[in-house]
Amino acid sequence: MVTFSEISPSEFFYRNRDLAGFTNPARALYMAVRELVENSLDACELAGILPDVYVRIVADGQSGDTPEPRAYRLTVADNGPGVDPREVPRAFGKVFYGSKYVLRQSRGMFGMGGTMAILYGQITSNKPVKITTSTDGKNKHIFEMLIDIGENKPIILRRDVEEANGKTGTRVDMILEGDFTRSAQKIGEYFKQTALVGSYVNLTFADPIGRITTYERATESMPQPPTETLPHPHGIDVEALKRMIKITEEKSMQKFMGNKHFHRVGETNARNFLVFAGIDPKVSPEKLTNEQVVTVVDALQRFPDFLPPDSSCLSPVGEQILGTGILKELEPEFQTVVARPASSYSGFPFLIEVGLAYGGKVLEPGRKLLRFANRIPLLYDESSDVSFKVLNEEIDWRRYHVPDDAPVAVITHICSTKVPYKTVGKEYIADRPEIESEIRNAVRESLRRLSLYLSKKGSMEAVQRKMNIYGKYLPLIAKFSQDLAGEKRPPKYKQLIREEQEVAEGEERTAQELTVETGGKESVKDQHEQAKIEDYS
Amino acid sequence: MVTFSEISPSEFFYRNRDLAGFTNPARALYMAVRELVENSLDACELAGILPDVYVRIVADGQSGDTPEPRAYRLTVADNGPGVDPREVPRAFGKVFYGSKYVLRQSRGMFGMGGTMAILYGQITSNKPVKITTSTDGKNKHIFEMLIDIGENKPIILRRDVEEANGKTGTRVDMILEGDFTRSAQKIGEYFKQTALVGSYVNLTFADPIGRITTYERATESMPQPPTETLPHPHGIDVEALKRMIKITEEKSMQKFMGNKHFHRVGETNARNFLVFAGIDPKVSPEKLTNEQVVTVVDALQRFPDFLPPDSSCLSPVGEQILGTGILKELEPEFQTVVARPASSYSGFPFLIEVGLAYGGKVLEPGRKLLRFANRIPLLYDESSDVSFKVLNEEIDWRRYHVPDDAPVAVITHICSTKVPYKTVGKEYIADRPEIESEIRNAVRESLRRLSLYLSKKGSMEAVQRKMNIYGKYLPLIAKFSQDLAGEKRPPKYKQLIREEQEVAEGEERTAQELTVETGGKESVKDQHEQAKIEDYS
Repeated sequence: MVTFSEISPSEFFYRNRDLAGFTNPARALYMAVRELVENSLDACELAGILPDVYVRIVADGQSGDTPEPRAYRLTVADNGPGVDPREVPRAFGKVFYGSKYVLRQSRGMFGMGGTMAILYGQITSNKPVKITTSTDGKNKHIFEMLIDIGENKPIILRRDVEEANGKTGTRVDMILEGDFTRSAQKIGEYFKQTALVGSYVNLTFADPIGRITTYERATESMPQPPTETLPHPHGIDVEALKRMIKITEEKSMQKFMGNKHFHRVGETNARNFLVFAGIDPKVSPEKLTNEQVVTVVDALQRFPDFLPPDSSCLSPVGEQILGTGILKELEPEFQTVVARPASSYSGFPFLIEVGLAYGGKVLEPGRKLLRFANRIPLLYDESSDVSFKVLNEEIDWRRYHVPDDAPVAVITHICSTKVPYKTVGKEYIADRPEIESEIRNAVRESLRRLSLYLSKKGSMEAVQRKMNIYGKYLPLIAKFSQDLAGEKRPPKYKQLIREEQEVAEGEERTAQELTVETGGKESVKDQHEQAKIEDYS
Repeated sequence: MVTFSEISPSEFFYRNRDLAGFTNPARALYMAVRELVENSLDACELAGILPDVYVRIVADGQSGDTPEPRAYRLTVADNGPGVDPREVPRAFGKVFYGSKYVLRQSRGMFGMGGTMAILYGQITSNKPVKITTSTDGKNKHIFEMLIDIGENKPIILRRDVEEANGKTGTRVDMILEGDFTRSAQKIGEYFKQTALVGSYVNLTFADPIGRITTYERATESMPQPPTETLPHPHGIDVEALKRMIKITEEKSMQKFMGNKHFHRVGETNARNFLVFAGIDPKVSPEKLTNEQVVTVVDALQRFPDFLPPDSSCLSPVGEQILGTGILKELEPEFQTVVARPASSYSGFPFLIEVGLAYGGKVLEPGRKLLRFANRIPLLYDESSDVSFKVLNEEIDWRRYHVPDDAPVAVITHICSTKVPYKTVGKEYIADRPEIESEIRNAVRESLRRLSLYLSKKGSMEAVQRKMNIYGKYLPLIAKFSQDLAGEKRPPKYKQLIREEQEVAEGEERTAQELTVETGGKESVKDQHEQAKIEDYS
């Protein structure tokens, strides 16, 4: 009655496309674009190449007026380092085969997005995918292939080598069922936000209607490429420790713990740890009993003296690049970027950057949240995301005197060697407490700065208004008084204006003390501004 | 620089536990309980056995006051049909191996929940899982095993056969790291809601503090077991069609289409379809060209005369069982259950049931949403769920005169051969338009009924109040008038009371016409109630 069967990873995701975000033809077109673009950007950045990415979607077949959903030809090409031709078939034609299974920050996290896109194209169009790649600029290798879903392996239909004319990079051509009408807005938003957070990227998009949109590079400075890192002791479980023991060549626990197996654990630290764990430093790792392995793992979690993960392996966007992006895409009246120091969860380092934009001509009234993770814009399922939770449940906006309908955009960016996505489709991020707290701190700091700006702007305007009135009428009143009294000189009204101004400044200061907790630079600037007002009187 | 590698399915989910809901020790304990209980319930129901499920969580090891998170021993035992001992190792020790990969309604959807729980237990405790099962009541088979994560296969440490003493069923004993303090509330809620939707289940839960909670069976009537079904033509893609062609023994397209390969497609329908698709009925399926396969798939989507999926393969909870559950768990003042007719999305049949409870002593002010899918309570990520969207964005509650703080619980249940979950952890359901629309209709109907009840209650109370006042004072006034005028008999005030009552009834009717669009039973009952009021006067 009950029959058991095995399915391959390709089969699993073929059956459960919703899990990877390929829910319907509109969403699938968006996901395919996104996954391929992210692979291109990852490849370029890891090689330190300023990315040029070209995306084209054209209707496939003769008739242009077939109703949606219909077949589209999708092309994504980059100027990256290319893919080793020996790896192409499996990298693009096998689920759970990829280059993302290391501890390194990258947009791809599950090593399957590109393959999922190709799989989806194949099952909706029955056409092979074409991969063209060159690593040396001399030869380019061309593959046409299908995926054998039941076996989870590539079927190569054609393989050629041609002249590369000096260009390296990878190009993917595929046909898939899509609904451009219903995905155009999301795809546009995706490119726009990609440009916002990657202002060093050149992105060209040719859409099926024939429009070409270009997002041009605004800065030549690129973030440092991310580097691979060792596992942090806090992230080690029994399985991980057993695997490390299996492959290590060290013959003592002292060497094993202290010699480049763990992130930021040196000789002294290793010695102290082994005393803490009650493990003989001379014993060979492979001689540990099952119980001792559990004891070590338990002690790894509890030992208080491990250094926190360092952030050198992370590649944040950086204040300058993020600021340039915000300026270019949102043209706000006020903007600020807060970068938090690196932190960690479960042994994985991460870092939060928050940008805040206010006013200007692009932003509409109301709060807008733009979420990014390892530089990917996240456009779906906002209300389940940790950033949404922080903004809407944990921040008391009244405290910062920012009304609900203020034209504000908050940009949150998490970068990590492992982003805790809740879905394979990378839609939203789990509310790990460590991450939540960092986002909260960064948002608060950025709101303090906005509040300071608004309060300064508000009170400067108030002082200005008062000064205008006094400055206009007091001399006239003084003149009347002088005439009425028959005096030679008017009363000393200038002193009055000065006093009134001091009262106004006092009010301003009180307002600032209520909202501003940062001090530092801002306060200094403040005094300069006030000095200017005094000059004016 | 870039290295590629392959990982196994076990490895993938080991690395990405967040995807399957094993995010932290609290959530993991909840997930492990849930996945094992769901396997037990699925097994019992499929075999038509009234389920008795026993769940125990005890602290593992000597010391009881170890701080959370700590090691717990989890036991889940059922009186189901047992698992074939030849299948036990792979069914519990291999990801992507299971009995859920068929078109049949079941709680499990991805065939991996039980294995994920065992995997999690192993990596946090390094202890093997113990499975005890008997299919015949004579022998019980005992397995102790670990999972080889890198190879995705079971490692059997011990295997025994013992006397079963007439009892069939399966028992899982495992040790895992958990945080009961932080998960107790969710686990309790999970059992409570499981009892609400499965009032035919006996559930016993022994918790680490030593409390035993029993959810007792309230009805012996069980839903019909779900049956396996054929794929509906609307759900067929190129890959699926090619596979069916590969295994079929039919030698003509006419036979292939019309002879028990597709859900509700018979001979005539098959013939009409092949004309529509422009495919020769005599051609052998395996002779179709690639282009023809695509043509057939395309036509399968567009052919207007396929019958919709029938719901006989679905196993809804049913009005009686759901009503009993609501009464038992929520003790409301008013309740109603709306079951929609079966519908389909992408070729998968589904059916929506909505229960609504109002007032009573259990419900607190404010709207509460209880979500179920194939009888699983869904407790996380409510705000991303399609039911949440319908309730909060698509229903105009004012139309039904239900204030925001009314003590209302809405219970939504979707049953389907394939529930479109967005996460492997089965937290929430995608907003497929067909599903959204069915939920909307069911919620509206249940709100109409509530509105009718409230309006009736309200106007009955108003009529009652008026009648009380008139009935009390009018005879006295009549008596005064009689005395003052020196008449022998009082004026005919009874007629006045009757007229006043008719006006009140008229108002009541108008109020009902504004809100009630159903008519039918409710209206009939209404007239009876009014007749009673007339008797009273």
